[in-house]
Amino acid sequence: MVVTNVKKGAMLVCQSGGPSSVINASLYGVVKTALASEQFSKVYAGMFGVESIFDEKFIDMSKIDKDELALLMQTPAAAAGSSRCKIKTDEQREKIIEIFKKYDIRYFFFIGGNDSMDTSNKISLLCKKIGYDCKVIGVPKTIDNDLTNTDFSPGYGSAAKYVATIIGELAQDATVYKTGQVVVVEVMGRDSGWLTAAAALPSQFGKGADLIYLPETVFCVEKFIQDIRDVLKTQKDVLVAVSEGVKDKDGTYIMEYPHKLAKDNFGHSQLGGLAGYLVSEAKKATGLKIRAIELSLLQRCAAHLQSKVDVDMAFLVGKTAVQKALAGRTNSMVGIVRVQKDGKVKFKAKLVPLKKVANAAKHMPLTFISKCGTNITQEAIDYILPIIQGEPKQKYENGLPKYINLR
Amino acid sequence: MVVTNVKKGAMLVCQSGGPSSVINASLYGVVKTALASEQFSKVYAGMFGVESIFDEKFIDMSKIDKDELALLMQTPAAAAGSSRCKIKTDEQREKIIEIFKKYDIRYFFFIGGNDSMDTSNKISLLCKKIGYDCKVIGVPKTIDNDLTNTDFSPGYGSAAKYVATIIGELAQDATVYKTGQVVVVEVMGRDSGWLTAAAALPSQFGKGADLIYLPETVFCVEKFIQDIRDVLKTQKDVLVAVSEGVKDKDGTYIMEYPHKLAKDNFGHSQLGGLAGYLVSEAKKATGLKIRAIELSLLQRCAAHLQSKVDVDMAFLVGKTAVQKALAGRTNSMVGIVRVQKDGKVKFKAKLVPLKKVANAAKHMPLTFISKCGTNITQEAIDYILPIIQGEPKQKYENGLPKYINLR
Repeated sequence: MVVTNVKKGAMLVCQSGGPSSVINASLYGVVKTALASEQFSKVYAGMFGVESIFDEKFIDMSKIDKDELALLMQTPAAAAGSSRCKIKTDEQREKIIEIFKKYDIRYFFFIGGNDSMDTSNKISLLCKKIGYDCKVIGVPKTIDNDLTNTDFSPGYGSAAKYVATIIGELAQDATVYKTGQVVVVEVMGRDSGWLTAAAALPSQFGKGADLIYLPETVFCVEKFIQDIRDVLKTQKDVLVAVSEGVKDKDGTYIMEYPHKLAKDNFGHSQLGGLAGYLVSEAKKATGLKIRAIELSLLQRCAAHLQSKVDVDMAFLVGKTAVQKALAGRTNSMVGIVRVQKDGKVKFKAKLVPLKKVANAAKHMPLTFISKCGTNITQEAIDYILPIIQGEPKQKYENGLPKYINLR
Repeated sequence: MVVTNVKKGAMLVCQSGGPSSVINASLYGVVKTALASEQFSKVYAGMFGVESIFDEKFIDMSKIDKDELALLMQTPAAAAGSSRCKIKTDEQREKIIEIFKKYDIRYFFFIGGNDSMDTSNKISLLCKKIGYDCKVIGVPKTIDNDLTNTDFSPGYGSAAKYVATIIGELAQDATVYKTGQVVVVEVMGRDSGWLTAAAALPSQFGKGADLIYLPETVFCVEKFIQDIRDVLKTQKDVLVAVSEGVKDKDGTYIMEYPHKLAKDNFGHSQLGGLAGYLVSEAKKATGLKIRAIELSLLQRCAAHLQSKVDVDMAFLVGKTAVQKALAGRTNSMVGIVRVQKDGKVKFKAKLVPLKKVANAAKHMPLTFISKCGTNITQEAIDYILPIIQGEPKQKYENGLPKYINLR
């Protein structure tokens, strides 16, 4: 009997939003699983996220060399390109489905944050409404870790490992002189403190940040300076980690203070971000040598310091998305569940309805923040530590990590 | 026959100047070799560099657990503390020798840059003059790579590997969107461009910096903006690496421009460094999304990304220093020689007179800089590549690199 391999139509995977160190591991999980299944007529990756659909710019992933493709596991940032373009109208979504039809795209995988999950949800619902059979599965990704219905978001683990490691290194560096100094490190996270919280980890096991400031608590410049003075009573150096998203009691971002100040004074804005502003205030108050460090893009693309748990889970959520879609599931996101097994923490994949995730944000629970507001609790440590474990063996060439070049 | 182990007196090792990722590997090379020789009555490390002598604060290294001590190989920054204190007068040097006498310190190893080599040279000469037998050997260390009479300075290899890797990662990150952007990265190196030159490496093998600016060439803001415009003719993004030490044709540091400007206008200084200033100029000129990143302390303490060649040579120069001192040599620095063997580059240690190294500075040869002034030549690539090779296996605990705590 000759079995004809009846293809299930084409599939498309797009990457969205800000890059991470492991977003390409999810892309690899999707693409490798899709190619291996041999059930798709085409395995496409969209060039520059959702914009690839309007541009009809799809990369045929079957054409890429297998060894090259495996480099997705260690290539930072969105290898197929990303987009910050928001899909807001039904007209846009109808246009998307029109192009899906043109390319017979019957499976759509969208790797991104909560905005992408909202888009996935709405496309999925519109497909159902107009009777176009297309399975839509969201694949979580964000260094901010603010997606709900998943224990953590792939990307967070590596960014947290980077922040914790760098803070540990800076704590060694910042304390080498007999004369003291203050170093203020600005960490990403506009609305949630997950990433900044990781700065509190190294001090659990050695030197680390002495003070951390999260968007979940009210920030007060006077208290910040008093906190520094208090630390200086017992040690010569202070290392501070502050989330870019800290706000005052009125909800005003502290990072807006220097702009406000400059505008109030001379109508022109000053250079320098939040850390720069805090440093100039602390310098006035303490007279100590003081330095501002912005981790900037480094914290989201430092793939040379991936967490193995994070990269493995990034791959798994991509792989699971394809498996579940092939099994007929749709309008879901692949979340991560934490399980305790033989006294060890393990992670598994599970499906959750997209509507539960779409546009919701997960903040740090207040039980994760110590009473003083400038440290994290044991509960938070127990949560973060398993996510930053392990260092994957990476391929280096010419002394540098090797990447795939898709774009 | 009973052989009595006659001790040769005490030895002292001090760390000096700015930290590096491998300065402790040199400390380990010195201390491990000294302890294993069993020829010293005491093996001391000075707490906070040369200041330890005046403070008489010495760490008895025989008391440290052997496994702990081995962590020096991967601990960043000066584990025994460092100092920026300059020894300028004979009175200071006489005081130092007085304390050497008090502790019977007959061997002095000074890990540092050219200023430390000058200090070592002068202490050594004074010892000779007053007839105090003390062997003095300098151990090179600087991420700036500006020490003469050594192929490279331990610390440079790891900093260069860090800069090249980060630039490679940023090049992935900075190009993910369909809309272009300009990223300007500020790299350390006040007077020489060795470290910034490493930013040109990743583009040899994939994506990297499009433009680099070194202190060895004259910097002109107008040309910088024109260079960016030229790159934008053929691609949508531009990644720039600029040395903090770039100067205009009059020898004025560009980093002083914003302060000068602010002072000229309103008599108060603006926040933000060189990259911040260049970014604001480029933004005015191109209208593109643009971002400044200062690598700051990260580039000198990112020990999680050590170059194996660098860390091995850092250990070797420390080890050699002790071996040569025990063999009666003094007033020398341990330099590194490059040898070609079976078509491969190898490195060896050699002794050079301290007076040759003291206060001299090695700049990038002009043959290392391309004619356009914004890239490096093959000669430079051939020089840097062997120094950034290899990734040492490091010990992690709780998902974080493990360090020794001496201070």
